[in-house]
Amino acid sequence: MPEAPPTDEGWFVLHDFRTVDWDAWRDAPAHERERAIEEGVAYLRTHEAVEDAEEGASAVFSVLGHKADLLVVHLRPTLDDLSRAERQFERTALAAFTEQPTSYVSVTEVSGYVSQEYFEGDKEEVDAGLRNYIEGKLKPDIPEDQYVAFYPMSKRRGEEYNWYDLSFEERSEMMSDHGDTGRDYAGKIKQVIASSVGFDDFEWGVTLFAEDPVEMKNIVYDMRFDDVSSKYGEFGRFYVGRRFPPADLGAYLEG
Amino acid sequence: MPEAPPTDEGWFVLHDFRTVDWDAWRDAPAHERERAIEEGVAYLRTHEAVEDAEEGASAVFSVLGHKADLLVVHLRPTLDDLSRAERQFERTALAAFTEQPTSYVSVTEVSGYVSQEYFEGDKEEVDAGLRNYIEGKLKPDIPEDQYVAFYPMSKRRGEEYNWYDLSFEERSEMMSDHGDTGRDYAGKIKQVIASSVGFDDFEWGVTLFAEDPVEMKNIVYDMRFDDVSSKYGEFGRFYVGRRFPPADLGAYLEG
Amino acid sequence: MPEAPPTDEGWFVLHDFRTVDWDAWRDAPAHERERAIEEGVAYLRTHEAVEDAEEGASAVFSVLGHKADLLVVHLRPTLDDLSRAERQFERTALAAFTEQPTSYVSVTEVSGYVSQEYFEGDKEEVDAGLRNYIEGKLKPDIPEDQYVAFYPMSKRRGEEYNWYDLSFEERSEMMSDHGDTGRDYAGKIKQVIASSVGFDDFEWGVTLFAEDPVEMKNIVYDMRFDDVSSKYGEFGRFYVGRRFPPADLGAYLEG
Amino acid sequence: MPEAPPTDEGWFVLHDFRTVDWDAWRDAPAHERERAIEEGVAYLRTHEAVEDAEEGASAVFSVLGHKADLLVVHLRPTLDDLSRAERQFERTALAAFTEQPTSYVSVTEVSGYVSQEYFEGDKEEVDAGLRNYIEGKLKPDIPEDQYVAFYPMSKRRGEEYNWYDLSFEERSEMMSDHGDTGRDYAGKIKQVIASSVGFDDFEWGVTLFAEDPVEMKNIVYDMRFDDVSSKYGEFGRFYVGRRFPPADLGAYLEG
Amino acid sequence: MPEAPPTDEGWFVLHDFRTVDWDAWRDAPAHERERAIEEGVAYLRTHEAVEDAEEGASAVFSVLGHKADLLVVHLRPTLDDLSRAERQFERTALAAFTEQPTSYVSVTEVSGYVSQEYFEGDKEEVDAGLRNYIEGKLKPDIPEDQYVAFYPMSKRRGEEYNWYDLSFEERSEMMSDHGDTGRDYAGKIKQVIASSVGFDDFEWGVTLFAEDPVEMKNIVYDMRFDDVSSKYGEFGRFYVGRRFPPADLGAYLEG
Repeated sequence: MPEAPPTDEGWFVLHDFRTVDWDAWRDAPAHERERAIEEGVAYLRTHEAVEDAEEGASAVFSVLGHKADLLVVHLRPTLDDLSRAERQFERTALAAFTEQPTSYVSVTEVSGYVSQEYFEGDKEEVDAGLRNYIEGKLKPDIPEDQYVAFYPMSKRRGEEYNWYDLSFEERSEMMSDHGDTGRDYAGKIKQVIASSVGFDDFEWGVTLFAEDPVEMKNIVYDMRFDDVSSKYGEFGRFYVGRRFPPADLGAYLEG
Repeated sequence: MPEAPPTDEGWFVLHDFRTVDWDAWRDAPAHERERAIEEGVAYLRTHEAVEDAEEGASAVFSVLGHKADLLVVHLRPTLDDLSRAERQFERTALAAFTEQPTSYVSVTEVSGYVSQEYFEGDKEEVDAGLRNYIEGKLKPDIPEDQYVAFYPMSKRRGEEYNWYDLSFEERSEMMSDHGDTGRDYAGKIKQVIASSVGFDDFEWGVTLFAEDPVEMKNIVYDMRFDDVSSKYGEFGRFYVGRRFPPADLGAYLEG
Repeated sequence: MPEAPPTDEGWFVLHDFRTVDWDAWRDAPAHERERAIEEGVAYLRTHEAVEDAEEGASAVFSVLGHKADLLVVHLRPTLDDLSRAERQFERTALAAFTEQPTSYVSVTEVSGYVSQEYFEGDKEEVDAGLRNYIEGKLKPDIPEDQYVAFYPMSKRRGEEYNWYDLSFEERSEMMSDHGDTGRDYAGKIKQVIASSVGFDDFEWGVTLFAEDPVEMKNIVYDMRFDDVSSKYGEFGRFYVGRRFPPADLGAYLEG
Repeated sequence: MPEAPPTDEGWFVLHDFRTVDWDAWRDAPAHERERAIEEGVAYLRTHEAVEDAEEGASAVFSVLGHKADLLVVHLRPTLDDLSRAERQFERTALAAFTEQPTSYVSVTEVSGYVSQEYFEGDKEEVDAGLRNYIEGKLKPDIPEDQYVAFYPMSKRRGEEYNWYDLSFEERSEMMSDHGDTGRDYAGKIKQVIASSVGFDDFEWGVTLFAEDPVEMKNIVYDMRFDDVSSKYGEFGRFYVGRRFPPADLGAYLEG
Repeated sequence: MPEAPPTDEGWFVLHDFRTVDWDAWRDAPAHERERAIEEGVAYLRTHEAVEDAEEGASAVFSVLGHKADLLVVHLRPTLDDLSRAERQFERTALAAFTEQPTSYVSVTEVSGYVSQEYFEGDKEEVDAGLRNYIEGKLKPDIPEDQYVAFYPMSKRRGEEYNWYDLSFEERSEMMSDHGDTGRDYAGKIKQVIASSVGFDDFEWGVTLFAEDPVEMKNIVYDMRFDDVSSKYGEFGRFYVGRRFPPADLGAYLEG
């Protein structure tokens, strides 16, 4: 039977999408809107500062189109931290103006496909550069780039093309080619890869960051021609948005 | 024609998922919230104590993300017990703050794939160890482990890979390999397997329990490479949560 | 071109599923709840007594889980009878506490696969036993058994396995084997088969009745290994419930 | 590359489905219900009389089950006529008691598969009988028959069975066989075929009319064995209903 | 591995679909409806005049059927311009009468399939005619034609027919044939093609414009026989509507 790759896991991730009830917002008296903004900003600030847990990272983004208006991403050491962050949001006056149309639960992951030396030897002896690289994947900062795209994906288990029926070597080679495509976008695209196997409806959640949103289109398009995507990728819905500092929440909501 | 495996059934199972109407909760006067908590705790306590039926087990979990906020699992000897438990929940003041976005109905099952000696001989002569093992599958305690994952699944009836068109021996061998993968997680993962054939939209409901949620990711990922999953598994939505004692309901709802 | 089987049709069938708005129910004053029960019981009684049409049968069931709370099944000679029954329900005070999340429209059917002699000769000369059997399929009593399961299904028209591309003989043989599996459950399972071709989203609606709900799981599981299901069956959602006499409506609603 | 058939188009078609808010209806004071009926009847009458456009046809049907309660079908020379008819409905007091759960937009079409001589020669020289036949397809009366069934459909573009990859001759032959099945129902079934390519989610909308609803089941079942359906048909949801004269709207709504 | 085509991108596109809450509209006092119309017209006028950004184009259309009532299309140089346009709409009194049931985010794109000389040489040396042509694709005017159709689409990655597994030459040839079909509609159909890879659920959004809506049906039908669509096209939902000048908003809403 084909062999699963070795993996290491880091922080758990919650993508918390929210729609704004614009009718309620328009109708609310100024002091209610002010309180919502105040509590919203405070929530976002304390979570971006990770005052709610030992370590982690959080950021807020505006989202285009009907699927959501806001996306709050939390990375934290435990699922409990995420659950608390999700419920704390509900305690703010901002929450009264939002619904949660969707969300995604995952855990950052590195696998033996791409960093075999890390998994093969004694982890204590891994050189510092690689260790930093791995650490950056498992406990990532949220990049400062302006734009974000998120999508969940699974590997195909088709009757002819079945990822899980390939040998480790075949999978590893395709993942390596895929990595080469990614390296063409070094400096233009950063990404957080997290596994949602057992936690959510697809197998991974991919979050892309870029200063130029066209590069996000370009990398996804280029990668679609890689065998690993073209023959073995199944994609969920795509979301695109823009980061803003908590202090800009009011400006965002006022249009 | 291929032969169905012999099966034995135990308790019926209801996975009762609930979302909390956080807006209503925030807006409710303190005494209403207190009554909701009081009646909610009482409901959960009496059901965890199985005061509503001759035997069984119940537990409550918080759930991450938009799909649900609470999961109450009931195992009981009859469908009527489950129906009553479901309706009794609606009589509590807590129910006024919840909706039921989804649910799952099933019955615990052991099959001839994995315990052939149990099904072949005279059941009275089965040795005590095996009988206890089977009994533990059919009338399971809900493990004390902190984390839970739930997903429904079916066996594929594809035009090329059709589980129901395989011989009993082929199916049995794959199930046995699958069991081997499971045994690698002994002590880390416990599971309740229940059939929903004829009762709900997939064929089985799988509930996993673990102290470390990463192990739930790992076992599902490892098993996905087993032929029985890779070629023959079709999965529904995944839910992940954490158990809490009824007394903590108030703390959970207050964020 | 393959030949369609000859068929005979009997009563039209409406599966009318209802969810109860438990919040509204809990909040309603006692006299409103009483009136809802009174009018609900009256509706169910007169329809079980078929006072609304020349002939037919009706029954009410509680349903487990989120998909519905009540199922009212009506069999009547005409679609107009069904339409009237559906609208008369809306006139009761009970309806104010319900929504109709789903439904199914079909007509009882016997086909030449299973009763070839009935279709081949002069129907007047068919012997009385067979005629009674056919009549029982077309104008069925609703069995007194406690439990019900309902699911819609279609025959697969896959690129490799295409039911509608098989010869009548091939189809007939598979249906006959399927009937053999069914006969193993004689006395344990009764069923009503009705065609929804042209009327609803699947091709048939299957309603099973049993004293022991495990037998409903068993028959569907066993049949799934029959070629006719394993290679050619496509199934919709499954619903499971329990019959109750109209007089018990109040007890059901009170939890 | 395979050749598209020549086509001619006639009236545009709107299938406007409506659910009735029975709770609101039950609760409304008599004078509001009366006004709703009055304005609803007036709307239906003027549209059946086509007072809103130069030519066309309209009819109203009751629909069974949860998918809709009313279906108003409009055929008109322009999409603008349909848009106006749709919006005029919203201006009636009846609309306050309805929602529009679904709809379908299409245009009547005849194609070169079935009337090759019409498309091949000089259309002015086509004999009067054929011209009338074509005209009846493009600008159809709505038959007086009591029952209606509607479903949208597309032709399969599967990896093995791909309608759009067949030669014109292959398609034409299958359409001709299909027409033969249809002719078996002459006098029992009438149909309106309209293309929704570019306008709505499937490729065609099919509306069947019959005095006996069982014949609608029979024709769809028989046709499913035609190669054109069995191998190349993809079907959407099915709706079944009954025509009523505008004057009966009140009786329908009162149950 | 197959090679991705070179692409150039222009303006970002938001298709902002809105349903009108006709019940609220009917019930609103005249002055509220007037204010909604006034603010709606002002919003549409300033956006059609692109007063909100450096360059771009906007237009409003009525939409037939239940999927939407209004479609506002915005093309702008940045995603931020689109986000602002979306939120500014929510600030109008018109927005109180609308919901946003769906939307689509994309960016205009030309690719090396159809304009190879543009991509191969030094772009500065491209002749003026081609440069204008490309510019017209990337920064398109919204045609004055009356009718619009919109649909999202992806290229198939099937187990047998996989667009992303074809050589550049194979893809290019099919795209060129597809272009030939398009040229048959020169003067009758105009189109805006925009990529949504990484931004939305399908890979491209196609917006067609025509004076005669039948031509939109014809071109989509004809193109469906092109290999590129017949074997490799996957289509989402279709929407059809009609352009109106902002000043006609009131007339549209009044029916």
